[in-house]
Amino acid sequence: MFRNQYDSDVTTYSPQGRLHQVEYAMESQKLGSVITGVRSNTHVVLAAIKRSSGPLCSYHEKIFDVDSHCGIALAGLAADGRGLCRYLRREAMDHQYVYNSEVPIERLVLGLADKSQQRTQIEGSRPYGVSLIVGGHDRTGPRLFQTCPSGNCYEYYACALGQRAQSAMSFFDRNKEKIAESTEAELVRLAFDALRTTLSEDGDLTPASISVAIAGADGFKKLSDEEVLAFFQG
Amino acid sequence: MFRNQYDSDVTTYSPQGRLHQVEYAMESQKLGSVITGVRSNTHVVLAAIKRSSGPLCSYHEKIFDVDSHCGIALAGLAADGRGLCRYLRREAMDHQYVYNSEVPIERLVLGLADKSQQRTQIEGSRPYGVSLIVGGHDRTGPRLFQTCPSGNCYEYYACALGQRAQSAMSFFDRNKEKIAESTEAELVRLAFDALRTTLSEDGDLTPASISVAIAGADGFKKLSDEEVLAFFQG
Amino acid sequence: MFRNQYDSDVTTYSPQGRLHQVEYAMESQKLGSVITGVRSNTHVVLAAIKRSSGPLCSYHEKIFDVDSHCGIALAGLAADGRGLCRYLRREAMDHQYVYNSEVPIERLVLGLADKSQQRTQIEGSRPYGVSLIVGGHDRTGPRLFQTCPSGNCYEYYACALGQRAQSAMSFFDRNKEKIAESTEAELVRLAFDALRTTLSEDGDLTPASISVAIAGADGFKKLSDEEVLAFFQG
Amino acid sequence: MFRNQYDSDVTTYSPQGRLHQVEYAMESQKLGSVITGVRSNTHVVLAAIKRSSGPLCSYHEKIFDVDSHCGIALAGLAADGRGLCRYLRREAMDHQYVYNSEVPIERLVLGLADKSQQRTQIEGSRPYGVSLIVGGHDRTGPRLFQTCPSGNCYEYYACALGQRAQSAMSFFDRNKEKIAESTEAELVRLAFDALRTTLSEDGDLTPASISVAIAGADGFKKLSDEEVLAFFQG
Amino acid sequence: MFRNQYDSDVTTYSPQGRLHQVEYAMESQKLGSVITGVRSNTHVVLAAIKRSSGPLCSYHEKIFDVDSHCGIALAGLAADGRGLCRYLRREAMDHQYVYNSEVPIERLVLGLADKSQQRTQIEGSRPYGVSLIVGGHDRTGPRLFQTCPSGNCYEYYACALGQRAQSAMSFFDRNKEKIAESTEAELVRLAFDALRTTLSEDGDLTPASISVAIAGADGFKKLSDEEVLAFFQG
Amino acid sequence: MFRNQYDSDVTTYSPQGRLHQVEYAMESQKLGSVITGVRSNTHVVLAAIKRSSGPLCSYHEKIFDVDSHCGIALAGLAADGRGLCRYLRREAMDHQYVYNSEVPIERLVLGLADKSQQRTQIEGSRPYGVSLIVGGHDRTGPRLFQTCPSGNCYEYYACALGQRAQSAMSFFDRNKEKIAESTEAELVRLAFDALRTTLSEDGDLTPASISVAIAGADGFKKLSDEEVLAFFQG
Amino acid sequence: MFRNQYDSDVTTYSPQGRLHQVEYAMESQKLGSVITGVRSNTHVVLAAIKRSSGPLCSYHEKIFDVDSHCGIALAGLAADGRGLCRYLRREAMDHQYVYNSEVPIERLVLGLADKSQQRTQIEGSRPYGVSLIVGGHDRTGPRLFQTCPSGNCYEYYACALGQRAQSAMSFFDRNKEKIAESTEAELVRLAFDALRTTLSEDGDLTPASISVAIAGADGFKKLSDEEVLAFFQG
Repeated sequence: MFRNQYDSDVTTYSPQGRLHQVEYAMESQKLGSVITGVRSNTHVVLAAIKRSSGPLCSYHEKIFDVDSHCGIALAGLAADGRGLCRYLRREAMDHQYVYNSEVPIERLVLGLADKSQQRTQIEGSRPYGVSLIVGGHDRTGPRLFQTCPSGNCYEYYACALGQRAQSAMSFFDRNKEKIAESTEAELVRLAFDALRTTLSEDGDLTPASISVAIAGADGFKKLSDEEVLAFFQG
Repeated sequence: MFRNQYDSDVTTYSPQGRLHQVEYAMESQKLGSVITGVRSNTHVVLAAIKRSSGPLCSYHEKIFDVDSHCGIALAGLAADGRGLCRYLRREAMDHQYVYNSEVPIERLVLGLADKSQQRTQIEGSRPYGVSLIVGGHDRTGPRLFQTCPSGNCYEYYACALGQRAQSAMSFFDRNKEKIAESTEAELVRLAFDALRTTLSEDGDLTPASISVAIAGADGFKKLSDEEVLAFFQG
Repeated sequence: MFRNQYDSDVTTYSPQGRLHQVEYAMESQKLGSVITGVRSNTHVVLAAIKRSSGPLCSYHEKIFDVDSHCGIALAGLAADGRGLCRYLRREAMDHQYVYNSEVPIERLVLGLADKSQQRTQIEGSRPYGVSLIVGGHDRTGPRLFQTCPSGNCYEYYACALGQRAQSAMSFFDRNKEKIAESTEAELVRLAFDALRTTLSEDGDLTPASISVAIAGADGFKKLSDEEVLAFFQG
Repeated sequence: MFRNQYDSDVTTYSPQGRLHQVEYAMESQKLGSVITGVRSNTHVVLAAIKRSSGPLCSYHEKIFDVDSHCGIALAGLAADGRGLCRYLRREAMDHQYVYNSEVPIERLVLGLADKSQQRTQIEGSRPYGVSLIVGGHDRTGPRLFQTCPSGNCYEYYACALGQRAQSAMSFFDRNKEKIAESTEAELVRLAFDALRTTLSEDGDLTPASISVAIAGADGFKKLSDEEVLAFFQG
Repeated sequence: MFRNQYDSDVTTYSPQGRLHQVEYAMESQKLGSVITGVRSNTHVVLAAIKRSSGPLCSYHEKIFDVDSHCGIALAGLAADGRGLCRYLRREAMDHQYVYNSEVPIERLVLGLADKSQQRTQIEGSRPYGVSLIVGGHDRTGPRLFQTCPSGNCYEYYACALGQRAQSAMSFFDRNKEKIAESTEAELVRLAFDALRTTLSEDGDLTPASISVAIAGADGFKKLSDEEVLAFFQG
Repeated sequence: MFRNQYDSDVTTYSPQGRLHQVEYAMESQKLGSVITGVRSNTHVVLAAIKRSSGPLCSYHEKIFDVDSHCGIALAGLAADGRGLCRYLRREAMDHQYVYNSEVPIERLVLGLADKSQQRTQIEGSRPYGVSLIVGGHDRTGPRLFQTCPSGNCYEYYACALGQRAQSAMSFFDRNKEKIAESTEAELVRLAFDALRTTLSEDGDLTPASISVAIAGADGFKKLSDEEVLAFFQG
Repeated sequence: MFRNQYDSDVTTYSPQGRLHQVEYAMESQKLGSVITGVRSNTHVVLAAIKRSSGPLCSYHEKIFDVDSHCGIALAGLAADGRGLCRYLRREAMDHQYVYNSEVPIERLVLGLADKSQQRTQIEGSRPYGVSLIVGGHDRTGPRLFQTCPSGNCYEYYACALGQRAQSAMSFFDRNKEKIAESTEAELVRLAFDALRTTLSEDGDLTPASISVAIAGADGFKKLSDEEVLAFFQG
């Protein structure tokens, strides 16, 4: 009933050594619709449920490209995410300019993680309120990472964030044998099936409500509505 | 009965990962009279209920032009809005000066959204207390956006903000088929009808209490009282 | 009985999106004696009840000239008002120097409103505790504005601030037809009558307790005691 | 019984638009012994009750000269007053240096009032805890002002500050007809009589416990003990 | 039941002279999986339980190399630890560059301890939330240190941090005679046995869940999965 | 029983216009052993009870020379006093260097008072926790002042600070006729007698527990233990 | 039962004029094992109980050399002490460099005391959490000082800090006649005996658990384990 007294400031530890404000910021990813990422030995697929505020409002985009070989899906405060997306694009461009090559995705992710960690050390600031799934294909092959406001980041074969993301994670766990060897199309359908598990009982997954992006040796590409439909019917 | 303890500071997350101060700032738009925007395939119409503090006071203007091709309607703290309007005009002028062309409306809106987002990250400041409907016509045709203090922005076919704006939104939802193909005059009348739904029982919509602006291929124009009357009687 | 917890800081929104500290600052105008302004098609009259701390103390002046064509009446914290008056005089002089012409009154008022609005955004500062009635005559004819600590400003035909100002406003509302066509002398008497409504039962309006200034095509002029008496007896 | 919650900070308004910390600072003048000033058409007299911490301690001086034509009496925190006195002396000297003439007393007083007002706007500072009676004789004749921590200042014929100053003010009010035409000696005796009203029943006004300064066309002069005695016996 | 009031700020002492926030930060090391270090007369072994968020997530690495002759194991907030690791690597590189020799491990550790101590003296910052086991082999032979957020650091023959680290420490205490003379392989098996004591009843130590690094006269080396397996079966 | 809420910050006035933190700082002088100063027409004597933390600890010195013609005795926080002593010595040296003459003692004291006053105006600082008795002999003859944390300073014939200083003051008051005409030796014995009144019943004044300094036309001099003994037996 | 409200900030006085945070910081010395210092007419001995976190952990060193002629023993927060030790070494080196002679120990101690005092005046910082015994032999012979977080410092013949240091002090008081004339070896044994009094009943003083340093005309030297054993058996 009584809240603890150590959760109002990012620079205050609880007696257990926890930073509650950082943990609360990590809860922000649960407030939006679900996003997911899944990686085979050759491809990475990012997929998200698109939502809008009403029938006359545009969809809220959840997947953004960062460079020609990678992109991100956002869960949490969209306005915070827009800023981080711009940061990633700038980093990618700078790397391209300096080294004349694509930025390694892991490097991109670690830079973002460090930037996030710094926000957990400064009083009078707040941690970012957004978690990212970063997917792409670089010299090391397909890569899939998840970052969070604490500054942690992990590599995944399949992950999901957002409302009821746990159902999607359970789906991936049950199908974990299939993932590594999936074809591009199979990966997309796995992502669709994972998203479907997160819908409430009377919800229905339709091509119009899904955003999909695929990264392979030929780069990162957001699918058009027609392409999504093709996979959906495929 | 007891308020939560996470809502006094813009840099404090609630245990659910929410920023209450940002959400409260978003409530400020409900304090003023209603504004609305509606977009067909060719035009955008902004309309607002004008109010004054009394019979001897001038009306409080709600619609402002930003450039020759776009303008805004304000809901919330008028003094905050005046500052944002000046910012948008300066951005539009700078773009005109540098690129010798009209600023794309989406670019204008994203700049404003980023500016708003930054105010949600700094302790000792406050988010803007104003939400905007931005409408205009650029190379991509008619555009209609809504921004809010959180730094989010969405594109709409029709939207409304302010006291009882929900009635106007419901009206637009019921008439959503008509909107895209409406003529300029039909759009204006749709806006009038939407505003009318927001009045209390004994309220009456009169030409004198309405502000209207229209944006089309020939630019953004605030209507004179006579022009409003003409549409009203039309 | 219990006060709300969102009213201690100018950068904190209430759950309804209100800035209570700004609203409280707007109450400061009610602490002093009443001031009023009224505008016809040709003239503007500012009038105020002068008060002193006792029979041996000078009157507290409420009306000040800003430039040869405009002036202000103050309600609220006099010391804050003195600072704003100096600001307005400097702005007027700068404009005269740069453009070799009188500063437009609306421009002067908007500058002051922006200056006031900025004080509502900074933690560790406070909004000004003073509301102004600004009256004068420029190229656009007679103008009458009211500014307040929130940064809002409105144009009026007649307005009043201070203790029991509501009575004066009601008086003006009842006589609103007469105002626009009033002569200079009629305007002054309207102002006298409005001030008289704000006195308590045993109060009596005497020429010695009134300050009056008139602005017309020939400039802004504070009346001498003799001139006030002449109008009073007129 | 319960204090209000708006009185801990100089930048916080109460719901009535008051700045309680500024008002509290104005109470500081009541903590010390009484000072008074009285002005005829030709002279100004400042007088104060001198007190000491004990028989072996020097008297705490309450009256200070600022320039050859004016001086001050202090009520409140003496250490704050010493700083303001130094400020006034510097201003007077600067004026003498730049314009080769005595600083007008009103100008001196307004400068001090503005300096005081600025301290009411800054968080982390405090208003001065001292009120001043400023008296002197310049080109405009004898002048008598009172300043206070809020930044307000008023001109007086007679005023008093400090413990039981209200009794002295009442005395002056009862004798207000005599003041303007008083001779220098009559003014001094009026001041003595006013001070006498502020003593407790068993208190007795003695020449040794009074400080007096007189300003006339021939300048400002603090009286020696002998001169005080002469007036006292006169 | 009631917490003390001296534990919200790193710059506040309790009446007993303790800095509770620093002590809370030292608790953070208990939140992660266990790490251990053990040193013979010739070698140092670092070992850690690897954990992942799920079957599809990569392991969270706990052991990092700093230079060719030393490395660290982390317990606590991983994102904080990443920053300290980068600091240590930079220090090691700088030393190599300036002195053309390996940085002495004690010097490295003292630098880190001082950096940690500084964070306990500044309001508005927070102590690091991570404790390190630093192991390596320099001119002085094998060295094993433990650092903590308070800025303290100690040299050990064997130490352990993390959940149930106490069991591992007890194991080492029981076997303290064997440690100094152990061979490289014996050291590794001691570390395995220590880690095993920290598992819950149904937990099982498998080669796949262990990270191991060995430092000897020939440098610091993280073991590959095959090498770990070899030692495990050995 | 309940403390007031206006005493936590040096920049907060109580409703009575008092600065409680400054008043609390003035209490700090009561925490140490007693110091006293007494002045005749020719000499000033400073005397203090020396105390130590135990038989093996040196005495805590209470009297310090500032220049060849003056010195101080400290009551309150010794570490604060050491800083002020250094300040006074530097001022005295600077004056000697610039004007080639001894610094007037009143000037020295006023400088210190202003420095103390400034600490009562800044949030985030604290007033000095030390009161000084400053004694010496300059061109104006023997001078004796007392300063305190509020920035006030007074001239005395005899004064005392510290535990039970009130007894010493009463002693001086009873003997006030003798003071002005005392010889050097009589002054010292008056100081001894005053100190004796402050001892508890079973306390005994011994030469070893007294520090004495004498200032006369021939300068300021701390007495050696032998000289103290001589006066004691004298 | 209820704590006072004046102890959370180093810049807040209690109504008795005390700085509780400074006093709390002075308690920190009681948290560690005991240290002691004792001085004869020819030598100074520093001695301390060494402790470790366990059988596999190195001892926590308590005695450090500062220069060839002096050193310190630490009680309190070891990490704070390390910083102060470095400060003292730098001061000693600077003095050696500038004056080509050993730094006088009293000068070293006063510099440290001033540095400590400054930390008691700044909000947002904290006093050092460590008390020092400084011992050495300079031109003035053997010197022994104790410093503490308040900025006070005292000279001693014998002193002790840490857990149950009071027992050691009582021991020294009982033997105070012997101290001044002790030989080097007698001093060491006095220190051993003093340390022994601080052990709990079942504690036993062993050579391995004692650190000793001796300063004499030939400099400051920490004893090796063998030398300690020799004195112990001696």
